[in-house]
Parts: sequence; C-alpha cells; structure tokens
Amino acid sequence: MTEPRFDRVLITGAAGRLGTELRRGLAPLARELRLADRAPILELRPNETAMIFDLADEAACHAACAGVDAVVHFGGTPHEAPWAEILDSSIRGSYHIYEGARRAGVRRIVYASSVHAVGFHRLEDHVDAAAPVRPDSLYGVSKCFTEALARLYWDKFGIESACLRIFSSFPEPGDRRNLWSWLSFGDCVRLVEAALTAPRVGHTIAFGMSDNPVKPVDDRLARHLGFVPQDGTAPFRARVEAAVPPGDPAAPSVMYLGGRICAAGHPEDRDEGQL
Amino acid sequence: MTEPRFDRVLITGAAGRLGTELRRGLAPLARELRLADRAPILELRPNETAMIFDLADEAACHAACAGVDAVVHFGGTPHEAPWAEILDSSIRGSYHIYEGARRAGVRRIVYASSVHAVGFHRLEDHVDAAAPVRPDSLYGVSKCFTEALARLYWDKFGIESACLRIFSSFPEPGDRRNLWSWLSFGDCVRLVEAALTAPRVGHTIAFGMSDNPVKPVDDRLARHLGFVPQDGTAPFRARVEAAVPPGDPAAPSVMYLGGRICAAGHPEDRDEGQL
Amino acid sequence: MTEPRFDRVLITGAAGRLGTELRRGLAPLARELRLADRAPILELRPNETAMIFDLADEAACHAACAGVDAVVHFGGTPHEAPWAEILDSSIRGSYHIYEGARRAGVRRIVYASSVHAVGFHRLEDHVDAAAPVRPDSLYGVSKCFTEALARLYWDKFGIESACLRIFSSFPEPGDRRNLWSWLSFGDCVRLVEAALTAPRVGHTIAFGMSDNPVKPVDDRLARHLGFVPQDGTAPFRARVEAAVPPGDPAAPSVMYLGGRICAAGHPEDRDEGQL
Amino acid sequence: MTEPRFDRVLITGAAGRLGTELRRGLAPLARELRLADRAPILELRPNETAMIFDLADEAACHAACAGVDAVVHFGGTPHEAPWAEILDSSIRGSYHIYEGARRAGVRRIVYASSVHAVGFHRLEDHVDAAAPVRPDSLYGVSKCFTEALARLYWDKFGIESACLRIFSSFPEPGDRRNLWSWLSFGDCVRLVEAALTAPRVGHTIAFGMSDNPVKPVDDRLARHLGFVPQDGTAPFRARVEAAVPPGDPAAPSVMYLGGRICAAGHPEDRDEGQL
Amino acid sequence: MTEPRFDRVLITGAAGRLGTELRRGLAPLARELRLADRAPILELRPNETAMIFDLADEAACHAACAGVDAVVHFGGTPHEAPWAEILDSSIRGSYHIYEGARRAGVRRIVYASSVHAVGFHRLEDHVDAAAPVRPDSLYGVSKCFTEALARLYWDKFGIESACLRIFSSFPEPGDRRNLWSWLSFGDCVRLVEAALTAPRVGHTIAFGMSDNPVKPVDDRLARHLGFVPQDGTAPFRARVEAAVPPGDPAAPSVMYLGGRICAAGHPEDRDEGQL
Amino acid sequence: MTEPRFDRVLITGAAGRLGTELRRGLAPLARELRLADRAPILELRPNETAMIFDLADEAACHAACAGVDAVVHFGGTPHEAPWAEILDSSIRGSYHIYEGARRAGVRRIVYASSVHAVGFHRLEDHVDAAAPVRPDSLYGVSKCFTEALARLYWDKFGIESACLRIFSSFPEPGDRRNLWSWLSFGDCVRLVEAALTAPRVGHTIAFGMSDNPVKPVDDRLARHLGFVPQDGTAPFRARVEAAVPPGDPAAPSVMYLGGRICAAGHPEDRDEGQL
Repeated sequence: MTEPRFDRVLITGAAGRLGTELRRGLAPLARELRLADRAPILELRPNETAMIFDLADEAACHAACAGVDAVVHFGGTPHEAPWAEILDSSIRGSYHIYEGARRAGVRRIVYASSVHAVGFHRLEDHVDAAAPVRPDSLYGVSKCFTEALARLYWDKFGIESACLRIFSSFPEPGDRRNLWSWLSFGDCVRLVEAALTAPRVGHTIAFGMSDNPVKPVDDRLARHLGFVPQDGTAPFRARVEAAVPPGDPAAPSVMYLGGRICAAGHPEDRDEGQL
Repeated sequence: MTEPRFDRVLITGAAGRLGTELRRGLAPLARELRLADRAPILELRPNETAMIFDLADEAACHAACAGVDAVVHFGGTPHEAPWAEILDSSIRGSYHIYEGARRAGVRRIVYASSVHAVGFHRLEDHVDAAAPVRPDSLYGVSKCFTEALARLYWDKFGIESACLRIFSSFPEPGDRRNLWSWLSFGDCVRLVEAALTAPRVGHTIAFGMSDNPVKPVDDRLARHLGFVPQDGTAPFRARVEAAVPPGDPAAPSVMYLGGRICAAGHPEDRDEGQL
Repeated sequence: MTEPRFDRVLITGAAGRLGTELRRGLAPLARELRLADRAPILELRPNETAMIFDLADEAACHAACAGVDAVVHFGGTPHEAPWAEILDSSIRGSYHIYEGARRAGVRRIVYASSVHAVGFHRLEDHVDAAAPVRPDSLYGVSKCFTEALARLYWDKFGIESACLRIFSSFPEPGDRRNLWSWLSFGDCVRLVEAALTAPRVGHTIAFGMSDNPVKPVDDRLARHLGFVPQDGTAPFRARVEAAVPPGDPAAPSVMYLGGRICAAGHPEDRDEGQL
Repeated sequence: MTEPRFDRVLITGAAGRLGTELRRGLAPLARELRLADRAPILELRPNETAMIFDLADEAACHAACAGVDAVVHFGGTPHEAPWAEILDSSIRGSYHIYEGARRAGVRRIVYASSVHAVGFHRLEDHVDAAAPVRPDSLYGVSKCFTEALARLYWDKFGIESACLRIFSSFPEPGDRRNLWSWLSFGDCVRLVEAALTAPRVGHTIAFGMSDNPVKPVDDRLARHLGFVPQDGTAPFRARVEAAVPPGDPAAPSVMYLGGRICAAGHPEDRDEGQL
Repeated sequence: MTEPRFDRVLITGAAGRLGTELRRGLAPLARELRLADRAPILELRPNETAMIFDLADEAACHAACAGVDAVVHFGGTPHEAPWAEILDSSIRGSYHIYEGARRAGVRRIVYASSVHAVGFHRLEDHVDAAAPVRPDSLYGVSKCFTEALARLYWDKFGIESACLRIFSSFPEPGDRRNLWSWLSFGDCVRLVEAALTAPRVGHTIAFGMSDNPVKPVDDRLARHLGFVPQDGTAPFRARVEAAVPPGDPAAPSVMYLGGRICAAGHPEDRDEGQL
Repeated sequence: MTEPRFDRVLITGAAGRLGTELRRGLAPLARELRLADRAPILELRPNETAMIFDLADEAACHAACAGVDAVVHFGGTPHEAPWAEILDSSIRGSYHIYEGARRAGVRRIVYASSVHAVGFHRLEDHVDAAAPVRPDSLYGVSKCFTEALARLYWDKFGIESACLRIFSSFPEPGDRRNLWSWLSFGDCVRLVEAALTAPRVGHTIAFGMSDNPVKPVDDRLARHLGFVPQDGTAPFRARVEAAVPPGDPAAPSVMYLGGRICAAGHPEDRDEGQL
C-alpha cells in the first residue's frame, strides 16, 4: 500500500513484549498509532500518542476508543493470575474495550487470545477453531469470555474480531514445547497485519504459530486472513534439544496444548501457575 | 431408589420460578436441600434449610457450598440486564460458587445455562453441544463464561458439571417460539435429576427442551445423562396458533434460536432486551 | 388452528396420485385451494378452483401463482423420461413456477423432490440432507436442478422452500424396497402440512419416509419442520416378504437408495427406466 | 414370513449363554439350525443338528460351513483370556469360519463382536460405528481383527457381515454399568434376526444395546438393519441402584465404555481381567 | 510425456478468453485439438480443427464429440444472463455435450464449472467440494445442473468428470476480491491438464484458484488431480490495494464467495448481474 | 542433537529393503542399533549388534526387546502371503514384540503398517487416519490387527506407537501408481526419525508418502510428528509415463489405494496377490 490503510489504530498493552513489536511493525498501516498501557510507554515516535490507564477504568477505555478505526487489543494480564486480577484486567477490561469500540463506531478489533483458551486439548487432537473451548487456567477462561463477547459484538453489533490464539511469542524458542508452539515476533506482526487488512474477518479465531515442523493444531478456518508465516523453529531445534532433555509424553505439560500451566493448581492455592 | 442419593444438595436461585419447582422435584434425592437466594424463600419444609445472600458475596457463596454433595446452580440474573448486574450475579457469582465447590470438595454441579449461549445459531443449523458458542446477549456471554469455567473445573480439578442450556421453561407455551422451545416444569426437574444421578457427567452440555414436534437442535451429545422428556407442545399447538399470528421467518426473532433477544439492542442503550 | 392458515394455496400436479391426496389433506389449511394440472381435475369441491395448463407454459405458470400465499409444487413428470419431457416439465416447468412465485410475492414453496436426487448413495451410507447429490436418472438430475434453484430463490429472493425428497408414496408397500422406502399417503400429507406451517423453513431438504423399521437415511437436518410420521411398514412386512423373494444385496436395485432405476440405462436407449 | 427364510443356518457358540437364546429365537428363520460348539449341545430339537469341534480346527470349521446359507458366529472365548486362548479361539477360529464360509459360498455372516473393540472410548464421546477402534483387552483386539477380516471378505469376496458390538447380554442388568449397557436376550435375538434378514448389510457394525435411558453410543450407522429394541432397563433401575452404590465417575470402570476390563492389567500378569 | 497422451481432444468455448489459453496450453497433450465455438476461431494451427455451432444444436454437439478421447467443456454463457440464454447454452448445451460424449464413448470430461455454483457461501465458511451448493445466479444454477448431470454420467455410464469451479481467471487480478479469487491463465491451463491426465478422476469437484495468500475455500477433496498452482496474487497486492479502496466486510459482494453477483437482482428485472 | 537421543534402539526386519536404509539413517539417533531379522544381517558396523530369529519365536522376541529404549518394528512378511505365514510373522510376531516391549519397559514403538490396511478406500475418498480400516488382503488385515494392538498398548499400558502406513518405498517410482504412492528412502528414514523423536506420539497413525503432486490421502492427523517430506515424484513423471501406459480409472488396481492387490484373489486360491 502506498499510503496507510488506517487513520488511527489503538494498541492496548503497548508497553508489553508484543506491544513493543507491534508499535514497530504496524507503523506503516496507520497515520497514527494510539498506544495504551498502564505502564509507561517509552520513546514515543512522531506517529505515536500514548494514553496511560488501567483497563478496569471504563471511562478511560471508552476515551481511548474514540476516534480510532481499529483496535489491536493486546492488553490485560498475560498469564495466569489470581481471580481479582483476571477479572479486572481481562474480563472487565475486555468488556470496556469492546463496549468503547461499539460506542465509537470502531469496525474491527484484533484480540490477543491465547492457546490457553484450548489448553486442555491434546496435541494429537489437532483441533481447529471450531472445537469446543477447554481452558487450562482462569487466564484461559478469560480468553474464552472475550472470544464469546467478540462473537456477540459481531453477530449483534457488526464489529469484526480476529481472535488470535497466540501460542508462545518470544525472541527465540526456549524449550522443547516452544519447538512447536513458537510464534516469532515477525510472524506475530504479520498475523496482526493480516487480521487488520483481510477483506472480511467477521468473527475469526486463528492460531498464532510460526511454520514449525511439529504442528498440533489445524488453522484452516483462518485461511481467509491471508497470514503466511515466514519463520519456523527448524533452525533452533538442535540447540534446544541439546540444552533441554525430552519430557515425558504422558505428562500434562507435554500432552496438552497448554503445556505446564495444565499441571499447575489454582492460582490462589499457591504461588504457581505462571504462563 | 429406596433412600436419598445425597446427604445435602445446594440449590441456588431457590426462590425463582424454576427453583421452586426444583425444591419440590428434587426432595426425594437428598436428605437435606440447602436453599439459597437473595430473595426470601417461603414455606420451608422440614428437609429444607435456607441461606439468604447475594452471589456477589464470595464468602457467603463459599459458606453455602460447605458440606454439600452436589450443587444445582440456578441462581443469577435470569435474563438480559446491564453489564454491572450480569457481571456481579452471573460472572462473579458463578465463579464464587465454582470456587466454593472446589474448596468444599463438591463433586458435581448442575448449572442452569441457557439457549442464549448459542442464540445466534439458526433453527435449521441443528447445532449440537460441540458447536461454537454464539451468545445473543451479555446474559448469553455470561453463560458462555460459566460453561468455560465449568470445563476448567472438570479438566483441572475433577468437578463434574452438567450445563443445561434451558430454552423456555414456563407453565405452558405462550407463543409460537415456545412451541419448539418449551421445557415443561416436569421435564426440567427430570433433566436436573438425570444430571445429578447419571453415572458419569464429566463436562456435559445438554439442551433443555421437552419432546416438541419442531426440533431445532441435536441433543445427542447429552444422551449419557439419561434424560427422557415426558412432555411436549403438541396439545398446546392449536390454542397458541389461534392466539398468536405467525412470525416472519426472516425476522431475527424467528430465525435464531435465541428469539427476540437477538433483535434487541444493547441493554444500556435503551430499556429493552428482556428474555 | 381454528381458521385456515392461508387464503389461497396453489397445488401443481393436483390431478396426480399425490395431488389427489393433498387436495383432501390440505383443505383445512386454506380458504381456497387452486389446483393446477395439465390433466383434468375431477370433482372440484367448493373450496377448490382449477387451472389446466402445461408447466412448459410460462405465462400460465405465472398466472397460476398470482394471488397465492404458498405453492405446493408437485407437478412435472413423476418418473424417468426422455430428455425433452424432463426438460419441459421438470426443468422449465419448475423455473416457471419459481419465477412466477417471485413475481407474485409468494413466500413459501413446498416442492416434491425425490429420492432420485440422491439415488446412487447406498443404504449403509446413511446420508443426510447435506450430502452431495448423486442423481440416478435424468429425472433425478431435474430434481437436483430445482433444489438448486430453490436455494437461489431463498438466498437471493427470500422465498422459502421445503424440498421433500419423497421415496415411495403408494397406498401400500408393494415390494421389499418399499418396506424401507414407503411414505404413506397420510404421512405425505402430514409432511407437506408441516412444511407449510413450520415457523421457519429457509431452504430445507427433507426425506419423505414413514417410520419404517429399516432406515437408510438420516433426516435430522429437517427436524425443524415438525414432521412426525404416524405410519410404518411393520404391519405389511410378512405379507410383502411372503409375496416377493429377497433381492441380491449386491444388485444396484438393492444397494442404492434409488432402487431399480439405478440399474436402468439411458431413457433414450430403450424403453426402460421407469420409476 | 410364512416359511423359513433360510434352508440352513450355522450357529457357532451354540452351547453358550447367547447361543442358547439364539437356538430358540432363530428357529422360525431356517428349516435347519446347524449348531456348533466345543461343549456339548443339549436337548436337540428336530430342526437342529449339532457339530462338536474346536474353532482352532480348520477342517472342522470348513466342514461346518458347507451347505449353509448364513452363519451366526457367536463362538470363541467370551471374555479376556491369555493370548494363546484368544489366538486360537478368536483369531484363528474366526479366520477359519470366514474362510470356510467363502469356500462354501455363504453370503452373509452375523458376528458377535463386542463393546470391548471400542472399550477405551468414554461414554460422553458418543462414538458411532465409524469411530476408530480402541480395544480394552486382548479379547477386544481379537474383535477388531475379525471386524477387519469381515471388511476384507465383503470388499473382496462379497460376503456380507453384520458385526454386532454386544454390550452386556444377561437375563437382567446386574450392576450400575448394566443400566446403560444391557442387551436383553429378547433384543439380542431381534438384533441377530434383523441382521440376518435386512435387505442389505454389506459390512455393518452395530451396537447391541436395549433401549436404555442412558445412551453412550450412537447407533445411527446401523439403522438399515431394522433393529428396533423392545426392552430397556428403566424397570430395573430402582432395584439395581438400591443394591449397588454409585461408582466414581473418574474411575476407568465408570468412564470407559468397556467398564472394569479397562482397569484390569494384562491377562498374563495376574488372574484378573475377566469380562 | 514424450508423445501426446490423447489422439483428439475437443475444446468447447475455444474462442473464448480461457479457450484461447487452453488451445496453447493443451497442445502438447493431443495430436489434434478439435475446437468448437459459435464464434469464429482465429488463426488455426496445424494441430487444430474448428467446428462452429451453437451448443443448443444437439446434432452438432453429438458430431463434435464423435471420435474424441476427451472433452474440455468450457463453452456456454460465461456470466449471468436471462433464463432463455442460460437454458440454451448452459443447460441444454451441457446435456448435448454429455450425451454426445456418452454416445461417442468418450471417457473423460473436464468441465468449466464456477464459483457461482457455491457463491452464497461466506469466505469464513471455508467450504470444501462436499458442501451443499448455494448458487448465486441462474448462471450458478446451471453450473449446479451440469455438476449433477456429470455425477449421473459417472455413476451410471462410467464417464469421468472433473468439474472445475473456476473463480476469476483474468490476465491479472483487477480488484480486491480478485486478490483471493484469481486463477492465473497459467494455473488454469495447469489445472485442466492435471484433470485430463490424473490417474483417476471419477466425479471430482475442484476449486480453481491460484496460490493466493487469502484462501476462502478448502480444496483437499481434489488433491488427487495433482494440480499444484504456480502463481499467486502476492506480487499484485500493493498495486491493487492502491487503486481500489477496501470494501465493506458486511456487503454481500465482499462477504460471499460469489462477489457482487450475490448483490445483483434477477437478470430479467434490470440490466445487471454481470459476473 | 549433539549426542544420540537413545542408548539402544531395536530394528526388526533389519535385513530387509527398508531395514537396510534405516540402519544407515537412524545411526545418529542411538549409541547402539540392535538389528533383528531371520535373514543374515550383513556388514555390521561398530554401533550395531545383530540377533537372528523368527518373529514367531516368542522368547527370542522378548529377549530382543530387553534393554532397548525404542523399537522400530519393520519385521514380518512384507506382502500378501498364505494365512499361515501372515499369522506367524505379522500377527503372532507383532504380539511378541509388543508384549516383549511391555515387559522390558520400552516406551515407544514405530511400526511399519501399510496402505494395505486401508487399501479398499478410493483415491477420491481422501481418507484420514481416523477413517475405518478397509484392508485389501490378509496382509492388510494383519496390519489392522497390529494397529489395534498398538492402540491397546497405549491406552492400557502407556506404550506409545506411531503406525506408519507406508505406501510404496522403493529406490524410484516404477509405475503410474507409484507416481502418487512413492515414499523415497530418504523420506522413509525421515518419517521414522520424526516418529522416534516427536515430543508426543500416543497412538498415531501416519501415512507414509513423499511430497508427490497427486495426493489421495489426508495426513493432517499426524502433523504432530513433525515429518516434512523432502522428495517427490515430479522429476520422475515424464519417464514413468513414457514407459507405462495409463490404466483404466475404473479398474480396482487404479481406483483403490491398495492398487493391484485389490484385484487379486485369495492367496490360497492361486499364486497371485503379491504386493
């Protein structure tokens, strides 16, 4: 495209790991990126504006949505957490953003859902986006909530949503599970860009993984987004396998899509359950 | 059974329309029915005890779950409502009950989900329990939330749930949609009883309808509950059709499972959207 | 219903075997039955009017549709025939009726499709209404044509169609295939009545069979019509089996839904291929 | 039928529990029942002849098949057993019968397969006959073997087989699992009769259960057999539930179709694993 | 192949846009290409012969089929048109070709079907070749007719057909829909060649699209043809998107596979409905 | 990996065509390859040890499994054979290996199953690994037996199995069927390596084919193995097609996955039925 597709795009969670990548990657798509986070957002570029607030703040969420063409909603707690935190940042926060978008006339939202919405499916199940949810954590339940909310806002209010079930987006694959679950930063940006610019999204659920050799899910129901991964874990395999011993195929952390969170207890029982 | 299957069963929403039926119908199943509601519960019988509290009260929910063998969770707002009410009674309330059940060692929960979790599917889609959710309201989204939560509590904590997607449970079918959506009070009690006593429930989603001639959903994935409806709308058809003119097959209120709620706007836009 | 659902219903093929049954059975549904056929229609009752014309006559078809609320389209060649006859009566004729209905503002059409649209599926395939067509004759191809036309007229013009794939509708089952393929006249009328009065039809394909013990197809995708068969072949079995020897399970006439038409050649090769 | 459908039908396992029922129930279907077992067959009726041999005896099996129209193959070890026994009676024995049938020109075989061919599916999976096998024992593996052999003999040699996956066929349901798994003797005979007389069987896999309220499998792919169960466990429920306490829904013996055999070890490890 | 696979191949519609490409591309496959069209066919090459006739001319169609090994049937109206034209060129014409092929002993036909046979499916439906037809025009209905006719001619007369549902075959993608719907001329020829030379075709329905990033349909049921697209729209995207503004995702012309024809009225209502 | 994944891997059938390839290809994966065959194993390398025995020898099989980490079970008759040979080498032999593995605590087995377990499916059926078996030979039945046995040993005893349904593994494609059925030796080794090293196998059925243009099966249910074929038949096509004339698409040897074995009779009828 010779000029930006959008006038203004809101990115929530803009101070986070992926938010930082998205600032850079999505810059060509919009004249202005409006960045939102509760943490400070550093090194603003000329095409960027920042708004600092908590997603639990309804009025601030509505204000952030005003005047934008599209929302890239990557904010909220990024891993398992106590209920109060999940409730405020992921459930109430997502409702505030969707309702803000509705009131502001936003037409499309790209939402950072997660593999943890379906974490209790097994690798060999090869689920597609139509499979029933099987969350592996309160965090995962909150992703199911927002996917359902997004479905309502499409069916009833005509706001399109691409819910991206991101697996593991890090600079490099760090363990054996990442050898199949990795989404490179580059592919993450490409996936969001595809979701923003696809001709029709409706309510789409897509799996966010790079082109890794081991493929435990079937992404065919998102092929209309036009996402074509460019990266994969093949070059990293030898190094990772040398560093990390094989897991037990019958261990929940190996057998389930969600990995070790599936083996963790309730977040309020003890200090565990991190992503 | 010659003696009650359970020592103590908690019924939430016990003061409501269906709660009242359940008090009567489930009495033979338990030595004691513990009844919970935020409204007063009238005319307690000897086998009943009452606890009056709001589902938003976490501690009260946990207390209500202590010492019970099973929970019949019919509490919470029974129709579309503003977000704050949905959030407190259906989302926070259901979490409080599930977490209370987990802490108390309860093994099985029967949950009053709703057709409105899948209200935007069409009659001719004949969805089964594995179809993706398509909520038709914030109320419906909260049902999706609790179904997902129930899935987590089964997969991770071993608590069984039967999520009953009740269609229209009234004394008699009142309009043309009810001719296919009706669940008689008798069948409602039979369905809950089946869910409480089935040999294995795991996480089951069942559709709650009587044996009506027009059948818009496929309940085969709940056949292991052993529910066999005894009622149906055939005897009511002539009267209802004489009293209510036919609807437009292309109107959302006729074409979608959810009925007229599908045509209603956002509950905070105007005073509409009642079930 | 205490009074007729429709003001005027057009029945094509009204002089035929099934048309005669429909005249009697549908009488209570409409103030007037407009009967069409190219053969004379005998013994008109007070609530009936007759129009005699060939379905190949476009203008006559359009005239017949004017002023009616619904069409029961049972006209056209009822069995395999040379191409010219199929073309005129089933293909051109059906187009004339659908286009006449569109111009007249008719909202619903009940069409006599046939098992022969899917005649080359096997009994043990248990096809449902979503299975690809496999016509067994030019006659069957013309049924596929009209079903596709009906789909267009619903998707584009909002005219509902119930395409009833009638198997074998005779006074009594006459051979061993009829023991599973039979549709009693009473059930045929009930099926048409259900299709005319169902709350929503959209584009529905239904299989027309009575409640016979041997069931080779799966009719679940038409359950929203509310058809409940009252008859079945169990009482006829002993007599039929005594009169007709068993067939070879590997013979096309036994293995395929379409029966002996599947084993017949092209209708222009020789004088065979009758239904 | 006014006269027998078959001249001569071979029943293997005729001295067993079900064989005895079949002798009585199938008598009207054949002029002669040829009964085979390795145990003595008592009280021969005029229409019966007996052959005593072991299924491991190839020549005897071939001789037994000579001159018969159909085979009802209920012979072989009826429960889990050491490999040598399974091999001889169920694997080698079934091969001998199928090959004997082929050489003798027999056209149809009704085979007593078992739920144990799919015993490791869960109740809530609602498997149909097309689901992958999941045997729960060496016994179950031998049933898979014979079902596969039967498939070959149909596809290649044109011999029809109905493989009946019998659940629990006893005089009465004896435990809580039987409340859903029971096949009454009467229904067992009806199922075999349906399989023998259906117009086309090809290679059919059917589930053998009475019309019990709890239904854990989906038998729709066998509906062309025409089997309509007449019995069910509803009348037995109160008595069984009073006598047997509920099981743990998470125990293998409750969660899997195969019941307690799923929890048993290898038959050669210790003296367990009986059906 | 070192020498032509076929002696003589008939190409109908040989004067059309795709016909011209096929003349060039298929030349190596046959000693002689017999070219048919009602328009003049220019610049005949030595391996080509021409026959000029209308597809409505039955005798001419039969004559054209005589002596050929295979037919590439690309003739007939290439877009929505009044019924009389659709009837003559697409319905009667296709019947004439199929019946001509049958009489001449032709063994394989490659038919230019169209996306418009399934035009009312949505992009996100990701239909495969087994999905029910949803034509978007009379033109589309005629494609459904011919696909059904082809099915009959395979099941009954053993003539193989590959029905290629061509999306948009132009020199270059011209609008945003073409970015996913484009079939390059090169890929079109490769697809026809694959269909002509595949080891077994039976009755195959294939989707004709190049390897474009956005993929709205699932072509796995045609993988046995061996078609591997070599082109795609990625190189054209920037230019097209700069020239054409985005569409409304909720507009029929964007949401449905058929594009703007889905939004057009009846061809006889007004002068619209062009492809 | 910088060092071998396994201490010791047993390869049965090590003297065979594929065994020889596996010796070379799998060497880097294990400190020691234990090679088993009933034929002599030539040119042992330092990392190899040999055991010569027949798979019908239970004690020898158990001994061969002792002390190994994984088994690559490629032994047994590699083509159709008389029953006695199939029984001994494929049925009894596979049982001996699985039971030996269980007693020795082996955790994973890679089994050389075969296309002939599903040989009677058609190319255009595009079966996946969940499709019902349709063996085309006694050889194929024995593969079904071992796949079922492997399922039991996973479900009950926790031993993982990858059952590789190898199509045609030869140095080069030799006939037209091989153009789609070929598995290059390199890809065969890659597939076994993937199966040995995948993070989780459970019970997986994979199709063993190279990346050939014509694809008659759908391997998506094995994507978690991480097998990525590197070879294909495109370079061989011209040469093969020049040397071998096309087959009849309606011949069993062309229409079925199993090829000419589908057209062969019983191995004991005459000297035919070789792979």
